[in-house]
Amino acid sequence: MSYTIQAIADAVGATAAGDTALIVTGAAEPASAGPDDIALAMKPDFAKGLPEGRARAAMLWEDADWQSMGLSAAILVKRPRVAMAGLTRMMDTGQGYGRGIHPTAMIEPSATIGTDVTVGPMAYIGPGAKIGDNCVIGPQCYIGTDAEIGTDGTLHSGVRLMARVKIGARFIAQPGAVVGSDGHSFVTAEVSTVEQARASLGGDVTAEGQSWIRIHSLGAVIVGDDVELGANSCIDSGTIRPTEVGNGCKIDNLCHVAHNVKIGRDCLFAALVGVAGSTVIGNNVILGGQVGVTDNTTVGDNVVAGGGTKILNKIPAGRVILGYPGVKMDTHLETYKLQRRLPRLFEQVAALQKAVFKSDQND
Amino acid sequence: MSYTIQAIADAVGATAAGDTALIVTGAAEPASAGPDDIALAMKPDFAKGLPEGRARAAMLWEDADWQSMGLSAAILVKRPRVAMAGLTRMMDTGQGYGRGIHPTAMIEPSATIGTDVTVGPMAYIGPGAKIGDNCVIGPQCYIGTDAEIGTDGTLHSGVRLMARVKIGARFIAQPGAVVGSDGHSFVTAEVSTVEQARASLGGDVTAEGQSWIRIHSLGAVIVGDDVELGANSCIDSGTIRPTEVGNGCKIDNLCHVAHNVKIGRDCLFAALVGVAGSTVIGNNVILGGQVGVTDNTTVGDNVVAGGGTKILNKIPAGRVILGYPGVKMDTHLETYKLQRRLPRLFEQVAALQKAVFKSDQND
Amino acid sequence: MSYTIQAIADAVGATAAGDTALIVTGAAEPASAGPDDIALAMKPDFAKGLPEGRARAAMLWEDADWQSMGLSAAILVKRPRVAMAGLTRMMDTGQGYGRGIHPTAMIEPSATIGTDVTVGPMAYIGPGAKIGDNCVIGPQCYIGTDAEIGTDGTLHSGVRLMARVKIGARFIAQPGAVVGSDGHSFVTAEVSTVEQARASLGGDVTAEGQSWIRIHSLGAVIVGDDVELGANSCIDSGTIRPTEVGNGCKIDNLCHVAHNVKIGRDCLFAALVGVAGSTVIGNNVILGGQVGVTDNTTVGDNVVAGGGTKILNKIPAGRVILGYPGVKMDTHLETYKLQRRLPRLFEQVAALQKAVFKSDQND
Repeated sequence: MSYTIQAIADAVGATAAGDTALIVTGAAEPASAGPDDIALAMKPDFAKGLPEGRARAAMLWEDADWQSMGLSAAILVKRPRVAMAGLTRMMDTGQGYGRGIHPTAMIEPSATIGTDVTVGPMAYIGPGAKIGDNCVIGPQCYIGTDAEIGTDGTLHSGVRLMARVKIGARFIAQPGAVVGSDGHSFVTAEVSTVEQARASLGGDVTAEGQSWIRIHSLGAVIVGDDVELGANSCIDSGTIRPTEVGNGCKIDNLCHVAHNVKIGRDCLFAALVGVAGSTVIGNNVILGGQVGVTDNTTVGDNVVAGGGTKILNKIPAGRVILGYPGVKMDTHLETYKLQRRLPRLFEQVAALQKAVFKSDQND
Repeated sequence: MSYTIQAIADAVGATAAGDTALIVTGAAEPASAGPDDIALAMKPDFAKGLPEGRARAAMLWEDADWQSMGLSAAILVKRPRVAMAGLTRMMDTGQGYGRGIHPTAMIEPSATIGTDVTVGPMAYIGPGAKIGDNCVIGPQCYIGTDAEIGTDGTLHSGVRLMARVKIGARFIAQPGAVVGSDGHSFVTAEVSTVEQARASLGGDVTAEGQSWIRIHSLGAVIVGDDVELGANSCIDSGTIRPTEVGNGCKIDNLCHVAHNVKIGRDCLFAALVGVAGSTVIGNNVILGGQVGVTDNTTVGDNVVAGGGTKILNKIPAGRVILGYPGVKMDTHLETYKLQRRLPRLFEQVAALQKAVFKSDQND
Repeated sequence: MSYTIQAIADAVGATAAGDTALIVTGAAEPASAGPDDIALAMKPDFAKGLPEGRARAAMLWEDADWQSMGLSAAILVKRPRVAMAGLTRMMDTGQGYGRGIHPTAMIEPSATIGTDVTVGPMAYIGPGAKIGDNCVIGPQCYIGTDAEIGTDGTLHSGVRLMARVKIGARFIAQPGAVVGSDGHSFVTAEVSTVEQARASLGGDVTAEGQSWIRIHSLGAVIVGDDVELGANSCIDSGTIRPTEVGNGCKIDNLCHVAHNVKIGRDCLFAALVGVAGSTVIGNNVILGGQVGVTDNTTVGDNVVAGGGTKILNKIPAGRVILGYPGVKMDTHLETYKLQRRLPRLFEQVAALQKAVFKSDQND
């Protein structure tokens, strides 16, 4: 594909300058850009790489002096990553899954397939499933009985939507993602070790070991519009009512959303996040990589949890947290700073003891 | 499906009261229950939602005054989650994989298939594999060479059993689960950086970088009866002897069980748990979400580890632990409480220094 | 298969002693070894199990007195795990995927397939893909448009290589691994809560919730030679340039390598490791299980991070680290030791206050 500088500027909502009819065929970092690439140098630091490359055009920051950089054309952007979104959307050539229903795909007669739907090789669409218009069901995907997906969705290779899940419009699922696996919900006939541990908060366990009885998942999953789910991530079905993921949520690779969890709109989870059963997550919540959230708790709107945070308690709206357990980030940093000063404190107390008690018995 | 209140009470081992011939077709939370649902309100708090819904029957706690709630019938249960197990098992309509061998499935002639086995679309069963009676091998599953699975197993879509794994009866594997991947076992020709780090416990590393030589996995995996494995979870093969998972273990999504690990019976792992190589886990061990267990250690029977715990040492039987490193939960909570009081302690020591040494040089 | 003791000694580069023509058919731990197994007892402790088993030959440590153990033959090794590498490579019977192109595999006409390539049942190879000589593409694998893999690679069942990824020679991917999923890269139109949290380092968030705009991944992935990728692990595509994994890296199960990450050569990641976007990892870096590395940081050559470490800052070369946040291991252990002594310190300060201020008001 080829694009004029003006077309790119229009796509990213920015100003073009210089030879705006100049044509590029790709984007590159400044130092590795060829003459047909637009160089991406939205910070002065990045622009230093321009002389090493051969770009004739660059995407730069808002008030960049592009003429001084030896460029023929420039696009000047206000919010670089927003511009990146427009540029990359424009230049994305996709996975090349082809169009139409592949002859090796298998679609049950009772499934409903919208218009302009692509179904890739060896994909399977089960009885009663409903696939919205313009969806791409990638190679080797599995769509379960009575599962539904709205318009304009893309399931990459090997995605599995289990029975009765309901998914909104413009869903994107990366390879191997699973929606609607059974919840991990078990009970023992008598009081179990874990119930005893929770009740005693820490004493040793004396309960006898027992076998686990399975609680089945009847509730499936409801996923809103504009949701993205990462590679090999899993969303479990609810027990009685569906597990819910709100509109606009973006969930990274290898995340786990347990049964009965309810996630609001526009949340962003980084990779390897786990949310345990029946927990409620508000709107616009951001969970860093490897964050864990315990079961049956609440995380308020706009909470931001730094990478590795383990949320063991209810978190009020708007809080920025870090640590294990997750506490206010400034509290965490203060505690951490004091911990680094502990060796000195121990010395000071030893000196005080010596002075006050004429003793050097400090251990 | 439809069920009388009496039939449900019988299935969950509880007492029915009122119009026990009343028929329901589903279960629901109290506030959203329709007239054909049994409302689930096993705690007084949940029962408050009954007036918002339209249920004529409810499942309630043991001595609930159901007549005062405007219900026609009730089921009174002693241990709510045990009742949930019975109810959800009764009402589970399953994935609808159909019955029999799907025409697009591929079964090698040397495989042995039991009676009443279902093999879904595009599933593959390799040479010498043995599938027990009544098993359901879901769509797009892979059963490797000489792999064996006992009776009444269910492999959901996309499960992969690798060569020579042996699995007991009533196994349930969620989508994308893998049993028998190669162990991650490597060695360097000379002493490596990690060996040096372990020996020195913390000094900087000076060993030269080396390449890794692969130790192959000859030992496959043995899984007992009544085991459940979560979506996209992985159990690696042992090096010489098999990795072992005991009867009744329930492992959630995205868990990792490394080569040579030996897990006892009736353990429960929440999601994103990792157990490193050659570690031995006892019976009835409960590991919360994102718990990690180091290699070559031992976790005793009945241990309960809270979410996020990192087990870096041997843990004796019956211990309830939390933290990184995992220590007795009450020790952990005490240390944590003292940490929160550190700012005050630093102030007190500064005041003491001033009083004793007439100095305010505390930093 | 059967092997003489001499042949095994040759394969592992060690010395054979006694009846070196003795034939064994397998390897076993000492106590469970039969007469046709070579017992593996490379430490004196392990050799204690020999009398319980029936082995006639054993692999022992360098100066073991094998004659006193009632053995007919022995192999004496210097570095046991290196010997294990040779032995297990020799005895590995593999997955038994067969040879050649399976009739149910689907290969697009524009793909280039090398000589002696195996493509398993229901595997799919997309347009323009290039598969090197001697590769094994396992059952139900997916090879995307224009993806390339070098010679002698093995993709186990269900591996997914997405469009345009480039992979070197001798690649091994365990079941369900994904290379080239889209990066998890999003931006809001205006300053987001997470940007505000990063800027303020801990104050509560007041920014309004916004929707996320997707940044597409144009850069694919470049993987070097001799790389191994674990089951259900994921490597995301870069935004503009490719995500890079260097020669000789060994990545365990359920790991996440985010967009734009650059990993040097010969790194070893244990399971459930996550490396966030645009981070640079040096050569010979070892990350223990569940280690997390934040985005846009640098980890120097030869760094060793213990299990569960969360790397939140730049780490210099050669450092051995542990903890959350990850700090020098000896600093971490010292801090940890002092924490355990905090209860005593609080008592000491209380006693000092009483003595100095004649006060017992310490709380």
